[in-house]
Amino acid sequence: MTTTERVLARIGADFAAYQASWLDWLRIPSISAQPAHAADCRDAAAFVQRDLANLGFTAAIRETAGQPVVLAHHPGPGAGADVPHLLFYGHYDVQPPEPLDLWTSKPFEPVVVEGPHGPRVVARGAVDDKGQASMWLGALRAWVEETGGLPVRATVLIEGEEEIGSPSLEPFLAAERAALAADVAVISDTGSWDIDTPSLTTRLRGLVYLEVGLRAAARDLHSGLFGGAARNAANVLARALAALVDDRGRVTLPGFYDGIADLTAAQRAEWAALHYDEAAFLAGIGLRHPAGEAGREGLERRWARPTCDINGLWGGYAGPGAKTVIPAEAGAKVSFRLVPGQDPETVIAAFRAFMAAQVPDDTRLDIQVHSAARAIEVPQDSRFVQAARAALADEYGRPAVLIGSGGSIPVVESLKRLLGLDSLLLGFGLDDDQTHSPNEKFEVRCFQRGLHTHARLLGRLGGM
Amino acid sequence: MTTTERVLARIGADFAAYQASWLDWLRIPSISAQPAHAADCRDAAAFVQRDLANLGFTAAIRETAGQPVVLAHHPGPGAGADVPHLLFYGHYDVQPPEPLDLWTSKPFEPVVVEGPHGPRVVARGAVDDKGQASMWLGALRAWVEETGGLPVRATVLIEGEEEIGSPSLEPFLAAERAALAADVAVISDTGSWDIDTPSLTTRLRGLVYLEVGLRAAARDLHSGLFGGAARNAANVLARALAALVDDRGRVTLPGFYDGIADLTAAQRAEWAALHYDEAAFLAGIGLRHPAGEAGREGLERRWARPTCDINGLWGGYAGPGAKTVIPAEAGAKVSFRLVPGQDPETVIAAFRAFMAAQVPDDTRLDIQVHSAARAIEVPQDSRFVQAARAALADEYGRPAVLIGSGGSIPVVESLKRLLGLDSLLLGFGLDDDQTHSPNEKFEVRCFQRGLHTHARLLGRLGGM
Repeated sequence: MTTTERVLARIGADFAAYQASWLDWLRIPSISAQPAHAADCRDAAAFVQRDLANLGFTAAIRETAGQPVVLAHHPGPGAGADVPHLLFYGHYDVQPPEPLDLWTSKPFEPVVVEGPHGPRVVARGAVDDKGQASMWLGALRAWVEETGGLPVRATVLIEGEEEIGSPSLEPFLAAERAALAADVAVISDTGSWDIDTPSLTTRLRGLVYLEVGLRAAARDLHSGLFGGAARNAANVLARALAALVDDRGRVTLPGFYDGIADLTAAQRAEWAALHYDEAAFLAGIGLRHPAGEAGREGLERRWARPTCDINGLWGGYAGPGAKTVIPAEAGAKVSFRLVPGQDPETVIAAFRAFMAAQVPDDTRLDIQVHSAARAIEVPQDSRFVQAARAALADEYGRPAVLIGSGGSIPVVESLKRLLGLDSLLLGFGLDDDQTHSPNEKFEVRCFQRGLHTHARLLGRLGGM
Repeated sequence: MTTTERVLARIGADFAAYQASWLDWLRIPSISAQPAHAADCRDAAAFVQRDLANLGFTAAIRETAGQPVVLAHHPGPGAGADVPHLLFYGHYDVQPPEPLDLWTSKPFEPVVVEGPHGPRVVARGAVDDKGQASMWLGALRAWVEETGGLPVRATVLIEGEEEIGSPSLEPFLAAERAALAADVAVISDTGSWDIDTPSLTTRLRGLVYLEVGLRAAARDLHSGLFGGAARNAANVLARALAALVDDRGRVTLPGFYDGIADLTAAQRAEWAALHYDEAAFLAGIGLRHPAGEAGREGLERRWARPTCDINGLWGGYAGPGAKTVIPAEAGAKVSFRLVPGQDPETVIAAFRAFMAAQVPDDTRLDIQVHSAARAIEVPQDSRFVQAARAALADEYGRPAVLIGSGGSIPVVESLKRLLGLDSLLLGFGLDDDQTHSPNEKFEVRCFQRGLHTHARLLGRLGGM
């Protein structure tokens, strides 16, 4: 029995404890977007800091301008050992749970329910990211508890502002370059191609997330007495937003597609081999027709083409019945997913110019930037990628595939730019995990395989 | 001295009593929207029922499914007299006074304060509609007290649900057709062009008020994982709503403008003579550029052209910060002000067809109708309009103007449709009366002129 096999056996024996720790973390409503939950964010950080300290990490809660960061170090086998240094990144914050009435159980009272793949945990953060971070936290724990230490050097960085665009992370990375030195970053915040296909994500889209406020008249007005004379902020905003995307699903911002390379034939072939069934994918969310750019393949649209989505929209009266008001104000949250070749600042500038040109000059536009991150493409030939593919193949008994993700993990871009680190995106989520939606869930089978895969990866990289 | 002159002289002698009665009525907080004020609504009805009974009316409080109605009759000079029968309509209910902190005095403790036009009464309902109804109630009283009777036959109908959309009124009108038979309705719930210009409102816009719900995916989705594949309800709705109005401010529903007659040259000339200063009007609400159809005059756009306004808009995440969600649902309240020639049902059908054509067939549209009322144009050549113009001219010493209102008074349409009655819209409010807002007021000068005008109108119609 190898050491890695002993560690896996220990995980098997103690699995209930690993799962319990994950559920305990989920009970803390660490919603970074809502100021009322600041103390919960702090509790969620303290929860994991304590766990890491118990494993022999030097673990600290570090203050930032926003939610605190957990930073922890473990020396691994010792100063002289020739083992790699891994930087594990995760986040303890979660999305707001609203709308609450669509949850079948309370978002911060995790429940284990039976699904088609066996038991699953339902709660806000079940997968994103407490569930996935709990996998590598569990693997570290299993190695320490079974062997008394770790086969690699490890730094752990867990932030609490990922769901609000990580405003404090970059200053932290820049200030703590020395403390964060490592050979590669390991992040579990992505998905598998499907529950039985081991997957490594090598592409992530970038994100520009903006908030637009529009003010027209000095006050809300009676739509009878003022209609036909007074500008309506909601009408103006709807019109401007509608103009952002054309009839063919293309974003109309000037220069938006400049610099985007078409997919290589090899990449196209690899994705074609996945036999993506878009009709089934859409049927799973109650739709029949794809959105996005006409004339592009399904995975291409999701992984390798940019988008424009309205994430929120408001203005005027939304209560019961009728109120005959011309709204003075309206607003929207609008985001663009970006792909390699696009510069977030260029997109933001184009958006500002576009919106200003769309609205009359007696209205007032206020545009805030919530996020701005480039897309990522991970080099596929590193020893870390090779080790991760091997660990996945060992766990699943079949080769791992290299996939893309339409989502954005801005930290991947920050780690590359500020620390020079590539990231291993080793994720175990599924498409139907309801991430960011009511009834978010994570399959216990995925959690278990992720926990095993991380334990195997530690063994491989430590030569054990 | 004519009889009318004697009645006017009595009003002058007893003016303090007329004003006191108006203020006493204002002290009753008859807020129809707030169930806690149901007893106050009943008190406000009883207050006027008693007054009318004292004047020799057979006056009753009639129950409805909601707030009671006051219904009263006076036979006038007698069964054989060839005099017209007037139906006076008013409402004793008022809007909620909130927000209370913006009032400079208590909303149900009327005060008389000095303003640029002399004394004014400040209270909720000061003008809408207790103040305006008190003018014709006072005129009826003056005639009875001075002459022992009325020169015309009179029916009085005062409801208590106008501010909540008059849900019980149409059933009442339909059930009481015989008791409400009359030659013309008289309503004081509109405004004057300005304080020194006697005005009769002969046009009201109609209203179609709709609520649209749009559902795309089965649930809210992550904009990264699903962006480029999943339809976004907010994008689809914004696009559909934007398409309702073209670049020139015209509503794009097919057939929307069919049947609308252009203004006559005479009407144009009459409104041109009002010297409407649109720049000043817009400056008063913080705007510089008019909305509405390009190439139409200012008053024409407000009084004689239809509109389309988004009254409310919602979808996705509107809280603080960023939520990267593709909304499954979005909605809007949308209303059209209508003008003569437009049929509400045709507009509703066109809207339904238009929206259905704008959205993909895997989304679900749900359209509710909150209001559907035709525009009103009062025939200008009737003897009642002539008499009202003459009464106004006598009182003000200058000719009355015929104006429009961009608003809708649904009872006017109901009276026409159910009872076949045209309405005399004899209003004395001013644009700055803060109707429905804190510090609602009515100028005593306007009240006095309204009281006189109604007394004069009774005399003219009774041939006295």
